[in-house]
Amino acid sequence: MTATRILPSALTSGVALVEPALREAVGRLCPQMSVVGRYHHGWADAQGREIDGWGGKLLRPTLAILSARAAGAEPSAGVPAGVAIELVHNFSLLHDDIMDGDTERRGRATAWTLFGVPRAILAGDALLTAAATELLAAEASGARTATASLMAATQRMIRGQASDMDFEGRTDVSRDECLRMAADKTGALLACACSLGADLVDADRTLVARLADFGEHVGLAFQFIDDLLGIWGDPARTGKAAGADLHSRKKSLPVVAALNAPDSAELRALYLRPEPLSNDEVARAADLVERGGGRDWARAEADRHVAAATESLEACDIPDAVRGDFLEVAAFITGRRF
Amino acid sequence: MTATRILPSALTSGVALVEPALREAVGRLCPQMSVVGRYHHGWADAQGREIDGWGGKLLRPTLAILSARAAGAEPSAGVPAGVAIELVHNFSLLHDDIMDGDTERRGRATAWTLFGVPRAILAGDALLTAAATELLAAEASGARTATASLMAATQRMIRGQASDMDFEGRTDVSRDECLRMAADKTGALLACACSLGADLVDADRTLVARLADFGEHVGLAFQFIDDLLGIWGDPARTGKAAGADLHSRKKSLPVVAALNAPDSAELRALYLRPEPLSNDEVARAADLVERGGGRDWARAEADRHVAAATESLEACDIPDAVRGDFLEVAAFITGRRF
Repeated sequence: MTATRILPSALTSGVALVEPALREAVGRLCPQMSVVGRYHHGWADAQGREIDGWGGKLLRPTLAILSARAAGAEPSAGVPAGVAIELVHNFSLLHDDIMDGDTERRGRATAWTLFGVPRAILAGDALLTAAATELLAAEASGARTATASLMAATQRMIRGQASDMDFEGRTDVSRDECLRMAADKTGALLACACSLGADLVDADRTLVARLADFGEHVGLAFQFIDDLLGIWGDPARTGKAAGADLHSRKKSLPVVAALNAPDSAELRALYLRPEPLSNDEVARAADLVERGGGRDWARAEADRHVAAATESLEACDIPDAVRGDFLEVAAFITGRRF
Repeated sequence: MTATRILPSALTSGVALVEPALREAVGRLCPQMSVVGRYHHGWADAQGREIDGWGGKLLRPTLAILSARAAGAEPSAGVPAGVAIELVHNFSLLHDDIMDGDTERRGRATAWTLFGVPRAILAGDALLTAAATELLAAEASGARTATASLMAATQRMIRGQASDMDFEGRTDVSRDECLRMAADKTGALLACACSLGADLVDADRTLVARLADFGEHVGLAFQFIDDLLGIWGDPARTGKAAGADLHSRKKSLPVVAALNAPDSAELRALYLRPEPLSNDEVARAADLVERGGGRDWARAEADRHVAAATESLEACDIPDAVRGDFLEVAAFITGRRF
């Protein structure tokens, strides 16, 4: 989720509320894990020295705080939810970077490349454990339900990551499988972020469910838009090479749609072969994905999820200011007007 | 924890109660993670086919069930605690095997060697997440407190593993650091196992604390005895080579005590050098650890923790049958009469 736009005010106040509590939670880990956690969050260098870096936009915590406000609570009531969801998010990044062999994140070396795989695994474990601890310690009647929701979302993320890894070795991934993977990997945690604050303050279950729907649709809209940009995005704006996702032979949503379309023989031969693709072949693959209907479908689905998110939010009986902030953050995440 | 002795009846009934629920919990994971989990638990081969293997002694779940009985509840009330603690135990084994590079466990290939590091990391994550989920879903008034206790114990285990990894690269580990590491790595989860069932049924806090003390002392007694066997154990009984822990240059409790004793220069020179030790040198190191007082100290500490465990349990107002079963399981774990 890129950061070239101006931060909405909801995000600025989300960061101000959550970051101190998040730093305290990471500071409560044992010294070894705290060093890895502080580095990973962007607050310290590999030696544990405080740096002037940017600790991130804290999108999910901001949504969690809005979610508490949606249920009529003070923003501060959502802070434990915000801390917990960000800890889960960072647990997943730490482990995903190992699994995917990624050496860079947010322009810095990934934790495992500096601290080694064992310490990065363990730091992820520590963050996941701390997430449950922080939420259970909240002085709120919904702490048990909220923690169960967070664990369910985490389990969905894990399922999404497991499917994503399986897809790499398969040539027969269906569009439905790919959709479910995207929903699990991206939708689940955003759905949880948008509902966890309400969950924590024991809000009406219908409100919790609608806020979760809103987040799930925002997550899927984001994923479709991100997958479109990964093929047809302007490198000057995305910061990635043209057709980056095709070069890495990612089974993204538009690609899987086109692979499953009639007359996909040429695309399948090109995309599913083991040898690397030349720039010309990447351009050809992009063309074939478009001809196979992958681009149109992804655009239509992105629009549909933006509309469905808006609809879910409209069905919520919440203060107008909160609705406005939710929509502003959703627009920031997806780059779309809501 | 070796398995050459006859199973106490408490363990047999513990297995009968918990194993079906544990299998269900692992079966609820996504298919990919369920395959890894079922293999790791010893129920299936790497292709997911059911095998006639032995699913383990389920020591910790048995203690969790005794703990619910100690609080006056039915054994079945402790089952969610037993399932959760075994899931956490197996999460830690899956990840520890990766971190330590171990290729065998319980006479079988470790999960990461068969499924790869990424899937083994993810399966550990899935088990940890499932542990919290299972406990939170229990129909018991203490579910929130119990889950918080389990997460606190998990965080201590993580701290213990982090220290253990640090010790490998250090030459100045103190006896206190080593004791704390052992308490975190082995004591924390046994303390939790012995108290979690009582926690879950919302028992009196004093009882919960005393049961936790009992488990912590059993864990430390086990660790001292295991460390003694790792140096002076009879290979025919331990199943390990003579002086196995010295060959691998483990900073076990007796060794660290001797390294910190006066006149430890020869031991330090031998043990802290990078080159492998010959069999003669291992014998010499064992001799030096004994001369440095490591053996006597570890024996005395093992005795002290056995006595302290017994005392903690005597202070509990619990049915005699439950006390008897606790002592029987503790004797089975440590190989000592309680």
